[in-house]
Amino acid sequence: MITSKQNAIIKRIKKLQQRKNRKKTQKFIVEGFHLIEEAIKSHFTVEEIIKTEHVELPDYIDIDQVMTVSDTIFSHLSMTETPQGILAVVQMKASYDYSGDKLLLLDGVQDPGNVGTLIRTADAAGFSAVILGDGSADVYNDKTIRATQGSLFHIPVISKDLQQEIPQLQAKDYMICVTTLEEATDYKAIRIDKPFALVMGNEGSGVQADIQNSSDVRVKIPIYGQAESLNVAVAAGILMYEFSN
Amino acid sequence: MITSKQNAIIKRIKKLQQRKNRKKTQKFIVEGFHLIEEAIKSHFTVEEIIKTEHVELPDYIDIDQVMTVSDTIFSHLSMTETPQGILAVVQMKASYDYSGDKLLLLDGVQDPGNVGTLIRTADAAGFSAVILGDGSADVYNDKTIRATQGSLFHIPVISKDLQQEIPQLQAKDYMICVTTLEEATDYKAIRIDKPFALVMGNEGSGVQADIQNSSDVRVKIPIYGQAESLNVAVAAGILMYEFSN
Repeated sequence: MITSKQNAIIKRIKKLQQRKNRKKTQKFIVEGFHLIEEAIKSHFTVEEIIKTEHVELPDYIDIDQVMTVSDTIFSHLSMTETPQGILAVVQMKASYDYSGDKLLLLDGVQDPGNVGTLIRTADAAGFSAVILGDGSADVYNDKTIRATQGSLFHIPVISKDLQQEIPQLQAKDYMICVTTLEEATDYKAIRIDKPFALVMGNEGSGVQADIQNSSDVRVKIPIYGQAESLNVAVAAGILMYEFSN
Repeated sequence: MITSKQNAIIKRIKKLQQRKNRKKTQKFIVEGFHLIEEAIKSHFTVEEIIKTEHVELPDYIDIDQVMTVSDTIFSHLSMTETPQGILAVVQMKASYDYSGDKLLLLDGVQDPGNVGTLIRTADAAGFSAVILGDGSADVYNDKTIRATQGSLFHIPVISKDLQQEIPQLQAKDYMICVTTLEEATDYKAIRIDKPFALVMGNEGSGVQADIQNSSDVRVKIPIYGQAESLNVAVAAGILMYEFSN
């Protein structure tokens, strides 16, 4: 049982809490039974398991690399308020193709909880993939992963430069729908009869002007009360379910 | 300028970070310019302002009780990551009637961020009021208030025992719609032609069985992908916008 924070394995795993080290090693951490089960069932490679001595491994965890650590060391590695005593190191996908006729594009959605909830909602609504533009929260952030509730392992989630990606999608006859509050059509009046990409913007400033200008249709959700706007994940949920039907 | 944590005023305000003290004094804290402006424009009474010396009071703040504190003291009182250097003490409403034909009832929604986003979404969708049942997060929690983005000051938000409130609403001919995953009708197939209350449940366990059984209609949102469920605020957003139309 590992009991020291200075242990090389513990130091290596602790470093994965930082985005730059995740990027360098192409690995990330998932914590808790449910997320680890979803990772194992998916096409991702789960490399190693770290657990406390109290945790019994369930049958679905059939991995050679299992390390037992003290409660103190687990707390040192854990990012949750009520740790379940188990986490896994997972490999990122080297290349990750996507296809399908319903895409969600995120243009600088900053809050990890929002990005995670957007991925979960896209999965539920039957969307094909989520494309994260520059300035969006890291999908491998612990808060993002928790908010996806495992949907990260169900549909492709890919980082791309949206200004390059959108013309390529248009060349493939995708309709680009951006959400905006001004000069936009009520979402209930929009008819979509071909593959499309829905673009959601930053929590404060919305979709960038360049991307708004390159879109095929501008869509808005009416506000009936005194609220200034909707939360980005709620707005996307309303639109994705409407456009799925 | 107040510079000591031991100052009686600072100690009194600091105590409002705890729910029991908010309940006892019937006061709560709102932080930041936008929320304070919404509170002042509303029918709530803003009692006092606490600010740092760097903050210039905008014109809309016309309140006699203004205290200036050091940056250290402000950090001691602040609940935000990037404080704006201003907070207000606001009185709760002694009694708070509600009416209207679209109500949102929350049965044990635990996460303050979810409760706040639900209030914001209910406001945006033109709902009349939000009723918080037992076990729901406190509306006067700092995280809840932040997530409402001010909608707390736009529509009535009231704590009630839902098991008592629901029969009273039914006696007034409200239709009670509960959300559940089983034995439920697809939300797109539901027609509502009278006043209604939409009941959303706990993040893990959903709406209590007792309340499910006393409902008039059970509604569900289909899951097209592999996600097990939707976030409660996203689900409520989809339903509130559908039923508003």
